[in-house]
Order: sequence, then structure tokens, then C-alpha cells
Amino acid sequence: MHLLTVDTLEQAQEKLLACLKDKELKTEKKSLTEAYQYILAQDVYAPFAVPHFRRSSVDGYAVNSADTAGAGESIPCFLKVVGSVEMGQENTFAIERGQCVYVPTGGMLPKGADAMVMLEYTEKFGADEIACYQNVSHKNSVVEIGDDMQENTLVLKKGTLLRPHEIGVLAALGYAEVSVYAKPVLAVVSLGDEIIQAGEPLQQGKIYDINTYGLYAQALKFGFAVKEYCHVKDDKKAIYEVLRRLVQEVDIICVSGGSSQGEKDFTAELLGEISTTGVLTHGIAIKPGKPTITAYNADSRCLLLGLPGHPAAAMLLFELLAVHVYRILQNSGEGTKVCARMACNFPGADGRLTCQLVQLEWQDNGYIAHPIFGKSGLISSLAKAQGYILVDMNSEGVKKDEQVTVYLI
Amino acid sequence: MHLLTVDTLEQAQEKLLACLKDKELKTEKKSLTEAYQYILAQDVYAPFAVPHFRRSSVDGYAVNSADTAGAGESIPCFLKVVGSVEMGQENTFAIERGQCVYVPTGGMLPKGADAMVMLEYTEKFGADEIACYQNVSHKNSVVEIGDDMQENTLVLKKGTLLRPHEIGVLAALGYAEVSVYAKPVLAVVSLGDEIIQAGEPLQQGKIYDINTYGLYAQALKFGFAVKEYCHVKDDKKAIYEVLRRLVQEVDIICVSGGSSQGEKDFTAELLGEISTTGVLTHGIAIKPGKPTITAYNADSRCLLLGLPGHPAAAMLLFELLAVHVYRILQNSGEGTKVCARMACNFPGADGRLTCQLVQLEWQDNGYIAHPIFGKSGLISSLAKAQGYILVDMNSEGVKKDEQVTVYLI
Repeated sequence: MHLLTVDTLEQAQEKLLACLKDKELKTEKKSLTEAYQYILAQDVYAPFAVPHFRRSSVDGYAVNSADTAGAGESIPCFLKVVGSVEMGQENTFAIERGQCVYVPTGGMLPKGADAMVMLEYTEKFGADEIACYQNVSHKNSVVEIGDDMQENTLVLKKGTLLRPHEIGVLAALGYAEVSVYAKPVLAVVSLGDEIIQAGEPLQQGKIYDINTYGLYAQALKFGFAVKEYCHVKDDKKAIYEVLRRLVQEVDIICVSGGSSQGEKDFTAELLGEISTTGVLTHGIAIKPGKPTITAYNADSRCLLLGLPGHPAAAMLLFELLAVHVYRILQNSGEGTKVCARMACNFPGADGRLTCQLVQLEWQDNGYIAHPIFGKSGLISSLAKAQGYILVDMNSEGVKKDEQVTVYLI
Repeated sequence: MHLLTVDTLEQAQEKLLACLKDKELKTEKKSLTEAYQYILAQDVYAPFAVPHFRRSSVDGYAVNSADTAGAGESIPCFLKVVGSVEMGQENTFAIERGQCVYVPTGGMLPKGADAMVMLEYTEKFGADEIACYQNVSHKNSVVEIGDDMQENTLVLKKGTLLRPHEIGVLAALGYAEVSVYAKPVLAVVSLGDEIIQAGEPLQQGKIYDINTYGLYAQALKFGFAVKEYCHVKDDKKAIYEVLRRLVQEVDIICVSGGSSQGEKDFTAELLGEISTTGVLTHGIAIKPGKPTITAYNADSRCLLLGLPGHPAAAMLLFELLAVHVYRILQNSGEGTKVCARMACNFPGADGRLTCQLVQLEWQDNGYIAHPIFGKSGLISSLAKAQGYILVDMNSEGVKKDEQVTVYLI
């Protein structure tokens, strides 16, 4: 009886990090229309105070707030309109007591004014006067210089994922482009004589290639670029040639299939051969995903992953290994997680971390997590799942109604 | 005193849906490497049963389970190995009592076998025998025909967002390409004399263009394609010419800025002019985002949105109007929401739906929502927020520790 000697997930992750810790990540400049979903490779400081002039946050009249004392819905005060601020123009004039100036939203306040009265609370009165129906306080609807960001403040840290909101912040600071991490370059290699491509007729014993396309999309989702994807039959020499070429060309090779103990499973041997470290991990104490192999080529700084053949397991281990390691290298955040209540009891697996796909149901302002049961490797369960829970190897499991953390997929 | 007559958010959404309800959405074919993040425009049925042959889910020996009765870790049973199944090959032989056949993971079971024994629980014994150290039950580690999906089952519904997992399902079913909704085509037009572009020197009264880039990224995030983006100064004729051209070319025009009551705010007038409906909504009872305008051109089937100038409000209203309407047209799901506990009291706004940005903190297996306070329109708050809460216009607000729904951004 020969069982694989397995690492825990943490051990497998740490071995990869130890190899990759000094890897210099490529960076590149991206314009703001290209930068969405990239990870910042620089700290971003405010090059000037925002706003850099006293701005109105409403359309209305810039006033001296003291002049509006006692004004209200039925008792207006009257102010003389001495001008109008043009949007985008520096204004040099000043107002005196009893005067006001029209300022549109975002316009610059004139000297002497300390508050804004919204247009809606005023009425034209004669040629150059307004009736003001509101008592406004000092700084009402005024944004002071630096109220938003002080000059030289650290606004966005290196490692920040650029969402639309961060793109907006960069635009506000006048950045035309920004330094981001280049997408790690990936190759996906599916192995197996049983695998056929879409378009080929289905035969007994064969299945269509799932992992090539599942991993391709998983790579896009997590910000990797797929340079090449291919299917290679179980021919040791052919696989070796493909791997030997790819190890020079990409940052990560993901081989799927051929990673367990079957007679034609060459993956461990071949990944060991093209690595400089030998096989680092052969088997992880995780369910599903046990037959996972890792290795590393230090010369080309290429990470080598032998992922399980089961699609759900292959996608999961891609996230737990490749994505995890790059998130640490880039100092970017975790994925999205939510809390949920378990819909039923769920047992742990002795000696293995269990990663269980769950379906989420929104109920009473919170999520219920329903484990998706069924034999290992069912394809249909993939499309039902919104996330997964992790049940510790030393845990007996989770009980019905227990609060769990669900990692969204 | 003249106040805008406002619609509720629901009224504004319903007016747009009434216009767009018969719009024929364009569809296109995408290969599986292109389809990630698109919305399915067809129902997907299983064209065959999955699996379509009896498969082993482990590497090991196909046996007659009755032969293993009584076998265990210290008392093996002995079986004659009569062959080996090649991956991807149809096998035509059958086993008899006392016999077994090697089958790799995913391989086809021979006739006469009803269960698998994992390789790890066997040992070679002589030339053509194995010792089997496990008593396996009927169907152990066997996936039966159709266990996963029956032929003609509806597997993915029209309107499904294609995540990596759905791409995997499509691949399993032999799809090379699939019909998806074409991305709605967008134009982003920022208005205002105060707006300058990155690279231009900062001057008093001017600000860098935020909304063009924020909305551009927001469009990408929600699966829209940006055909054109531009900034136009507050020149009525110039704006009109741009809008008149774009209304023939895109599905949605998003104009930002120029939508409130200021003297140079032509947006409502111009959107009304290029529409066939006139202005549908001028002002929404939402905070922020009140100065929002909608209209529609029925000839070119183009949706016209005048979004507020404040970046957070512009991005929010884009989501609540354009994204919301297209999600209903495509029958695709909502965005991601999570439950959280409020970190402090938060007041509602009388007569307006309040959309409050919040920062999420993960604590004790759940989220705490911290409202991001500060004057309206602060840019720096954008990058701090992970989501927003909606406080109903008839609500007094939310109390500390109350459970709230947070919509992730």
C-alpha cells in the first residue's frame, strides 16, 4: 500500500513563496482607460491639495453668512448681486457685506464670501437683487482647500486593485497613466488520451476538454494573461517537449490531469525534470485537490503546477496556489468573502482541509449556505455554486445554523 | 423658490424600462476563450448524458464488489488482473467473478465490474494478481451514465453570467462557442468649462476630468463597451452636435455634469431635444444624485442619461439606471450584496432615498459597515468605500448594530 506523502495547504503555499519571494514582478504603464482591474505597482500621492481652491458644492449665491442671519422661508433677507463666477475661471473680485455673487456647483468662491445659499432658496428681486430665504452657517456648502486631500498625502497604496473608484481618484489627481503590475503570463496544458476537443464526435471513453477552458477563464478572472493553451496526449516525450519550451516563455505553467498515481501519470516526473528544485509538493491534504504537484524552475523563475483533473478541484487549486502566491507578491487584497448560516450539518474530512462548494440563498437580510452534495467531480455542481467554505482538517465539521465564512467564486 | 420636481428611483427606472422593454438586444457568438463575463443569450441543454459512459472516479481496479466482502487492512482478498483499460479507449471486455481490471481515473468500467478499489488499497501479488485490502460497496467510486446531467436537461439559463465555472460546464458539453448578448455600446461625454485633461497645468477654478475615466471604468466593470469618450466645453451648439451624432451610434449616452439648475446647465434642454420622448425624469429623490436627467430616442433606441457632476453620484446613478435596466432586459442577476452590522447610527434623509458609501471591516466572522462621512462629493472617500447601503426615504435611518444590506462596488 503506497500512499502519497502530503503537505498541508499552508506548507505547499509556503514552499512556493520561498521560491518566488525574490521574483521581480514586471511592471508597466497603463493609461486610465486601460488600468481597470490592474494592481497598482506604485504608491500614489496627491501632487496638490484637493480641492486646490475654495469650491461651492451647490449652484447658488456666495454670501457672507452673517448677512443671512434671521432669514427664513417667510422672511427673506435681500442681497445685491455684484457678479457671476464663470465655471473654470479664476475670479479675482471680492464681495462686501450685503453683496453676493452667483457661483455654479464646483465654481470658485470670491473673497469675502464664506458660505453658499442654494439657488432653490433664492428668488430674483429687481434687476440686481435677490431675496434669500435661508439662514446659512459659516462654510455652508463650501469645500475648503485640502478638505478632500492634503498635498502629498498617500492616497492609494502600492498593491491596490484599481476599481472604477480608484480610477476616478487617479483622474482627480491629474494622472494620465500609472504604474501597474504586468499580468503574470500563464500557459495551460491539459493532458490525457481521453480528452477530445469540441467539434470532434463524442466516443465511448472520451470526454470533452474542460480544464483548458475553465482554467483559461479562471486566469482571466484573477488578472493573469494566457499566452498559450493546449492539449497534449499521454506521450511522455511530447509532454516533455511542450513543458521544456513553455518553461522559458511563461511565469506559470498549469498542467491539469495526470497528477495522481495512475500508470500513465507522468506529470510529477516531468515537472520534477524541468524544474530546478525537483518536486516540492506531491499531494496536498485538501479535499478535493489531493493529487496536486508543485515545482519551480529558478533559472526562468517559472512556477510549475500540476493541477488535479477534476475541474472544480483544478480551478480551486489554481486559486489557492497561483492566485494566492501572486496576491502576496503584489501585496494585493484577498478575494471577496461573505458570512452565511449553514443550512445543515456538514462533516469535516479527517486529516484533510475540506473545500466545499455552496449555493447561497439570500434570506432575512443574510445568506444561508447550502452545501452542494454529490459525487466528487460533478460538472453540473460547478454552475450551482456561488462560493466555497473551508472546513479545517482538525474540525469535526460545521453544524446547522453555525456562522461560516464563504469565499465567493 | 423653484425646486426640481423629482421622481423616485423606482419611477425613473420604470420610465426607462417602459421605453426599452421591446428593444431587441444584439447577440453574438463567442468562443469559450472569449465568453468570460458575457451574459448567455441562449438556454443551454445537455446534448448528451454526462458522463456518457460508466466512469471510475479513482485510479485503481474495477472489481465485482461481492469479491471484496471481508477484505480489510490485515486480511486482503486476491483478484486476478485480466487487463488494463487505456484512457480514452472504449473497452469491450468483461470481467468474471474473482477478476479485476486496472482502470485509471476517468476511465471506462468494463462489463461485469460494479465498483472500484483505489490503487492505494491494493498491492501487486505475483505476475497477474493483486491483494486487495478494502471491502468496497456496490458503485464505490463509480460515476454512472447521466449521474451528472441527464440528456436534454436545461443546464444554463439564458441570462446567466458566464463565470469560469459556467465556461467549464459549456466545455464539458462540447460547446465550441455560445450565443451571448453583445456589450451595450456607450458614449461618455463630460461637460464643463472647469474641466481640464491630465497633462494640462492646474489652474485656479479648474479641475481634472474625473467622470470620463470613472464612468469609463464603471462601464467596463458592468460589461458595457465604450465606443467614445470626450470632454466638451459649456457651448450649447458644440454639445448639441456631439450628442446628435452619438445618438445614432451608441445604445447609451452618459452625459456628466451640467444637470442641475445652474445658468449654463444645458443638459436637460439638449437631451430633451435629441430625444423623441422629451425629458422623462429631471431630478431623482436620491442622495446623492438628485440632479439626474433621463430621456430616450425611440428612433435610434438610444438611452440618454444626464448624470450628476459628483463622481460618486455619477457612478452610482450609472449603476442604478443603465446597469439596472440592462440587467432586467438581459434577465441577468443582481450585483453582489453582503449583510453587515452598522458601526454607528445613520440618519435617513427626509423624502430622499439615501445611498451611503460604507467601509467594510471583517470582524468575528461578519462585516461591520462604517459609513464614510464627509462633505458631499469628496474624491478621497471613493477609494475607501467597499459598498453602499440604501436608506429608504420613509425611514428615520439605521441604528448602531442594526443588520443592513451592503451592495458591493
